[in-house]
Amino acid sequence: MPVITVERKVMEKNDEVAAELRRHFESRNIHVLNLLSSPGSGKTTLLERTLERIQNTVKVAVIEGDVQTDNDAQRIAEYSIPVVQIVTRGGCHLDALLVRDALSKLDHQKAQLLFIENVGNLVCPAGYDLGEHQKVVIVSTTEGEDKPAKYPKMFHVADVCILNKIDLLPHLDFNVDRFYNNAKKVNPNLTFFECSAKTGQGLDMWIEWLLARIQ
Amino acid sequence: MPVITVERKVMEKNDEVAAELRRHFESRNIHVLNLLSSPGSGKTTLLERTLERIQNTVKVAVIEGDVQTDNDAQRIAEYSIPVVQIVTRGGCHLDALLVRDALSKLDHQKAQLLFIENVGNLVCPAGYDLGEHQKVVIVSTTEGEDKPAKYPKMFHVADVCILNKIDLLPHLDFNVDRFYNNAKKVNPNLTFFECSAKTGQGLDMWIEWLLARIQ
Repeated sequence: MPVITVERKVMEKNDEVAAELRRHFESRNIHVLNLLSSPGSGKTTLLERTLERIQNTVKVAVIEGDVQTDNDAQRIAEYSIPVVQIVTRGGCHLDALLVRDALSKLDHQKAQLLFIENVGNLVCPAGYDLGEHQKVVIVSTTEGEDKPAKYPKMFHVADVCILNKIDLLPHLDFNVDRFYNNAKKVNPNLTFFECSAKTGQGLDMWIEWLLARIQ
Repeated sequence: MPVITVERKVMEKNDEVAAELRRHFESRNIHVLNLLSSPGSGKTTLLERTLERIQNTVKVAVIEGDVQTDNDAQRIAEYSIPVVQIVTRGGCHLDALLVRDALSKLDHQKAQLLFIENVGNLVCPAGYDLGEHQKVVIVSTTEGEDKPAKYPKMFHVADVCILNKIDLLPHLDFNVDRFYNNAKKVNPNLTFFECSAKTGQGLDMWIEWLLARIQ
């Protein structure tokens, strides 16, 4: 009984701060995407390829979330855009309070687009609203077609699903149609993109969708 | 303050039950391995290939852990060995109490080897002792060389690290030596194996190590 009480308070506080963040983003016309995936799906590489294509036309800021290291923030900093690293030191997800702290250190007032790259984890981050406009779940072809069925909450809360590493398809037993069917069973409203962040294949439609989000 | 108290009680209870499980396993000479990894690293496929090689000489039982579905238990059941599926329904890790419950339904009294396949998650399961003899972390080459630095706790608590999907190395920018160096920095005592559960390449040394565990 005390556990439930504590958890409820934690979630209530998170949702309260997420609502506050959402008002902040709305008032400044900042479109915010929460990027979610397993470890090693290629989130940071996808972000790098995306930045290369839009950084001259769109003002972008990035919050990186990791259990440990600031490796990802260092990769993003190469693009000379504002970036802050949240190191959770063992924590398995970002929450709205961590994002609020990070924002206080991030030069984001003029940003049109804010990416929040969550901790690599297909379970826990699904439960935390960060005040984002859309949740984007990235799945790599090497992870298998069954992930939506096995981690349904993540696919249920996501708005967009990006299938990454399609360059590896010839070397894998991965049935793309079966993956889409599994994902649609969990969430019929998902918007899908498929790409290889490594080769650049398929990125155009994702970039087009992204630019349409910006007012 | 109340959160800390509750968490401590949860961990104390887990450790108490894990110690009880360990005594149970010792008294019956059952060697127990806790298999840990990101989603889609190939844990179940590795287990299938392992079962094919040892099921005629060793008595094996399996506990499968998943957030949702009993797909994995169904795959293992094909090998006609005792298997029980734990579905955590959103829970991000197995704990000793779940394993104790599963054991009460699993015909494991004569098993020499018990595999516990944990929930696919490189963060949370690292913190929970299940009474196992060794923790085995499986990493696929597609996940990148930096995972030990980014998820240090998992590699710190692991005894064995299996690098899987080495058949994909020609198609990836994955430096195997760099991966090993990153892992050794976190845990110099790790025992390494590399294999492709898909092609069977490299499985011999893992099987040899496994058979040497059995009394």
